[in-house]
Order: sequence, then C-alpha cells, then structure tokens
Amino acid sequence: KFITAAEAANFIKHGYNVGLSGFTPAGSPKAVIAEVARIAEEEHAKGNPFQIGIFTGASTGDSCDGMLSRVKSLRYRAPYTTNTDFRNAVNNGEIAYNDIHLSQMAQEIRYGFMGKVNVAIVEACELTEDGKIYLTAGSGITPTICRLADHVIVELNSVHSKNTIGLHDVYEPLDPPYRREIPIYKPSDRIGTPYLQVDPKKIIGVVQTNIQDEARPFTPADPITDQIGVNVANFLAADMKRGIIPSTFLPLQSGVGNIANAVLGALGRDKTIPDFEMYTEVTQDSVIALMKEGRVKFGSTCSLSVSNEVLDEVYNNMDFFRNKMVIRPSEISNSPEIARRLGLISMNTAIE
Amino acid sequence: KFITAAEAANFIKHGYNVGLSGFTPAGSPKAVIAEVARIAEEEHAKGNPFQIGIFTGASTGDSCDGMLSRVKSLRYRAPYTTNTDFRNAVNNGEIAYNDIHLSQMAQEIRYGFMGKVNVAIVEACELTEDGKIYLTAGSGITPTICRLADHVIVELNSVHSKNTIGLHDVYEPLDPPYRREIPIYKPSDRIGTPYLQVDPKKIIGVVQTNIQDEARPFTPADPITDQIGVNVANFLAADMKRGIIPSTFLPLQSGVGNIANAVLGALGRDKTIPDFEMYTEVTQDSVIALMKEGRVKFGSTCSLSVSNEVLDEVYNNMDFFRNKMVIRPSEISNSPEIARRLGLISMNTAIE
Repeated sequence: KFITAAEAANFIKHGYNVGLSGFTPAGSPKAVIAEVARIAEEEHAKGNPFQIGIFTGASTGDSCDGMLSRVKSLRYRAPYTTNTDFRNAVNNGEIAYNDIHLSQMAQEIRYGFMGKVNVAIVEACELTEDGKIYLTAGSGITPTICRLADHVIVELNSVHSKNTIGLHDVYEPLDPPYRREIPIYKPSDRIGTPYLQVDPKKIIGVVQTNIQDEARPFTPADPITDQIGVNVANFLAADMKRGIIPSTFLPLQSGVGNIANAVLGALGRDKTIPDFEMYTEVTQDSVIALMKEGRVKFGSTCSLSVSNEVLDEVYNNMDFFRNKMVIRPSEISNSPEIARRLGLISMNTAIE
Repeated sequence: KFITAAEAANFIKHGYNVGLSGFTPAGSPKAVIAEVARIAEEEHAKGNPFQIGIFTGASTGDSCDGMLSRVKSLRYRAPYTTNTDFRNAVNNGEIAYNDIHLSQMAQEIRYGFMGKVNVAIVEACELTEDGKIYLTAGSGITPTICRLADHVIVELNSVHSKNTIGLHDVYEPLDPPYRREIPIYKPSDRIGTPYLQVDPKKIIGVVQTNIQDEARPFTPADPITDQIGVNVANFLAADMKRGIIPSTFLPLQSGVGNIANAVLGALGRDKTIPDFEMYTEVTQDSVIALMKEGRVKFGSTCSLSVSNEVLDEVYNNMDFFRNKMVIRPSEISNSPEIARRLGLISMNTAIE
C-alpha cells in the first residue's frame, strides 16, 4: 500500500536501528530519512529523546548523514561516511561511529554485533505483490538488512528507470561455519537473482518518490591528473611488456575521485593495453565512457556512482549496457576472496 | 648425491636470489647459508662484491638474517624478519627490504616482481630418488621456490623425524586469471600432497645435517598475561552465550608470543567454551598442550614454532598427533579467502 514519507517515518522510533539500501548516494533512500530528521527535531523540542542507529553499505547523501547529524538524532553509525557535519559530530563524541571494512558490514550485522535491524528502507525501481524488489543504482547491504529487519519500507523512485531490472545480482552468503566459496571466477559471473525477495508481510508501505541521486560533482581532469593517469598507464603497460601482467590483462579495481577518473581515461587511451574488465565497488563516469568506446568490456560494481546525466544515458541505452555490467552487494564487490582470486589490479587514491 | 654445506654454498653466486624453506626458524635450512656468509666475508676481504637476495616465508633464525646482515651480504629481502642486526642494516639503507603480506609472497615471486629464483634451499626429513621431498617443521613458500628455482639444494636434517611424513599438505594455486577457489571448508581439509615434487635433475646436492631449529624461548605465563588470557576467554564465552558466536564455536587464529600462549591456556581452561579447532600460521607450545588435553581438536598451521622439547614430544607421539594437525604453505595458511570463509576468531598481539 502507498503511504507518504511522513507516514513511513512514524514507524521509526527512538532507539531503533535502521538499515538503508544503496552504496554511496547511489541507491540510497532519500525521502523517509528527511522526515525522520523532522520528527527528531520535534521530539527534541518537546524535550523527548530521539536517536537512531543507521546501517548502510557505504556513504550516503546529505539527506541522511548530514541532516541526522545536524538534528543530533544519530546514536550509532557504521561503516563509513564522508559528511562534514557527521565527522564533526563524531569528533565531538556525539555519535558512536564504527569504521569497519565495507565488506564486513553485512556479516557483522548478521552476527548481531550491532544489535537488531528494526526497519530497512530500500529504494526500488519496481516491486511485485509477492515481495520481489528490484533495486536501483546501488546495492550495499540491502539483501541482509531486508532479510533481518522486522519491517521494510520501500521508496519507489520513478527517477530510476524500470529498465534497470536485471542489472543486480542479489546474493547473500551463509555465515561460518557453513559458508562455501563465493563462486565468482570472472567479473561477469552471476551467482544470485536479479531481484531481492522479501516477505511481503514485512513491507509496511511503499513511498512514491521522484528524487535524483545526490551525485557528487567531479571536477574535470586537468593537466596534473592527466599526467598522473599517463604515468600509471605507462607503468602497467611496461609491466605487461615484461610479462609480469598477462597479455590478457587483469581486471581493474579503481577508487573514487578525479584522479581515478583520469587514470581510467589514460588507460583507455593507451592502446598497448588490451580491452579490459573491471571488478570494483563504484562505477564512475569514466567507466561508462570507456564502455561506449569498447575499452571496458565488463564492469562489476556495487553502485553506479555517476553523474545524473550519465545515469540517464545508461538508463536510456540499457540494450547496450545490460550485458556489460552487474551491481553486487558490497560483501561480494569488496570480497577479499574474490579480489585475490581474480588478481585485481587495484588503484586507490590516497590524497587528492 | 651428498655434498657438504661448503660445497653447496659454492653454487650460490653474487647477485643470486635464494629462496628458503620454512616459516619462522621452523623448517628453515641452517647449514648452507652459514657457509654462504663465510664466502661473502672472503670475497669482501678480496675486494669483490658478494650480495644476494633472500626470499622466505616469514622470519628465519640468526643463522640467516643475522649472519648475512653482519657480513653485509644481503641485497634484497622479503617478506618479513625479526632480527635486530637485519633491522639496523635496513634502517641504515644497506638492505632493500620489501615488507609485504606473508600470504602474497609466493604469488609475487611467481609474478616475477622480485626477479628470478636462482637457488632454493629446502630442509627435508626425507627425499626420494624421483624428487619427492618431505618437509620438516615449517612450509612457507617452499612449493613455489622449489618449482621456480633453477637449482635446489636439500638439507636433510636428521633432527626432524621421518615420522613427520604426512604432516604437510603441499598445494600451490594457479595464478589469475586461472585461479579457482581454494577448496578448504574446515581446518582439517587436505587439498594437496604430503610431499613436494621437484624435478630431480634440479637437485644439485643433498647436505646431511643434524641441527635443531633455532626456536625462540618464551618466558612462562605470569599473573598479568594470565589475567589477559582470562579476560579474552570471558569475552568470547560471553559472546557465545549471547549467540553471537555459534555454539559449535569457530576456529581460532592466534598470533605469536607469550600473551598468545596465555590466552590459549585460558581458553583451554574455560570449560564453557567447547573443544575447538585452530587455523593459524604458527603452532606454539600451548596448542600442543591443549591437543593433549583434547581441548584443541585440530590445528592447521604453517609451522610448528615450538620449543625443541615439545617438537621432540610431537615427533615421538606422531600416532597421537598425526590426525590432529596439518602444515600448509603460507599462501594457504594466511589466505584471506579461507580466513573469511571459516569465520576465524583472530587474536594477535600488538605490543608485549
């Protein structure tokens, strides 16, 4: 049944732990948490306590970490964020922040280290009567929080085309001592389902929204970042010539930011490097451009952390992109088992 | 054919990279490297250069890192050591030291990052005409260096009982993009062979030795380390009671040192914790004691880094210990894939 964001927010009580879909702003719910922040302000004005725990895949947008920090309604937060107001609140001792490896977040929630998941809020582009949820531009810890939560709130966001159906590969491993191998042997292997199955009785309401991802702007490449990119490309090309990297190349993992974009651009232009695949946690604009040129053959990711224009372009050309990408949960995209097995060439940006 | 340590050392030339068996002093060759240090001194006295690279699984004893550092005959060294003379030489800029994750050492050698392996020196308790080598108290990177080296020197050490035959599980994964899962699902799973197969034509000689491992002394537990152990045991017992650790418990990984010994002792005494298994890189005296009590059901390790008395005890009671332990190469004992899959409870000592 359809409800408003304000109605949905009323289900979230002081002391709850709330799990959110998405990874970076991509795929994060955007409507209900803003209403929770409003409720928190009202309760605080009445002298009542109102603080919640927030579990996510990675960072979110200002509508979550920023707003909740400013109204002092965050009690606990894991595993990661980039928000300035949040950081200040943590450093002031106002928020209990647990900074853990993103690939371990789902497992530590399952283990119960962080307490119960009371409510999961999940952004969807489509859902069915029998509880099949089709996710949007990011995955994160969504399979785990939706399975464990007492209640699920769906934000059905019409900004995300129903064309994205099929992009996700939803998979949740068993915990030790019952875990087996994660059966991914190349970036394009699919091991799960294209939808997230939730007990429909747990869905307390569907909030219809039309809100764009809070994509962060990237400044364009400049001569310095371009030269960094050329240096990295030359290094990898030289190692391939020495035989240290196989002539088929190896899948790339690339971090977030302008230098990462510049490095990928330079790798794309260096034609001594063959067309390559990626197994990474975020897909940025430069990867989409390289897919269009045929330089990136396949990209496995946890989120499409692209500009809104590029996201539209992908959605409008899904026939081209559909067999070139997959979006995975963060415990799979960031799995040390898979990273080591695939022999990823990892490039992350320390300081920009 | 049998040769002396001095004859074997003559095969090692200035500029060579030499790979050594073992992990910690356990399983490290002890005779030939001392002769190499003597040759280095002679060459230096004549004004000739003499420096080599040393590849190992982990630390060695003073007979390797200490002696070679003091005669200034180390050019390059990876991945780890604990020797004081070595550390001083590195900090003086005399040795190129590459401090990498122990599980990556074999792979980076195979990739060729560190150059060719000219000679491998491997300690054995037995070998056959057709090149089957049975290793001693440690494994490390032995499968990789023996396969890649142009020449193999075997130190046949009669201190190590032929009873140890069967303790090792020798396995080397393929490199990306051809790697599959490492098929270990519980600490006792065996995936390889009990011997190391080497092309017998590469074996340039067998040096007969009778030298004990340079085991490091551990000071006995004291009231402080005992209390640390009790605190850790209480913490884990409480988490098991809360249901956060399954009632079957999970395999333990334990670091090196007196506190690790004290923690294991306390875990053994805490009868609310069920009999458990270990998947770790070094097995110390306390683990052997807990095996005798039945508290440790199985121990997977990369080396028996025990006191010489305890090593004798194990060798003299192999009928009891044989099905309770396995010694693996370091890229398997320290594999992130296996650590995450088994859900290891890892306990390492930051500062003692």
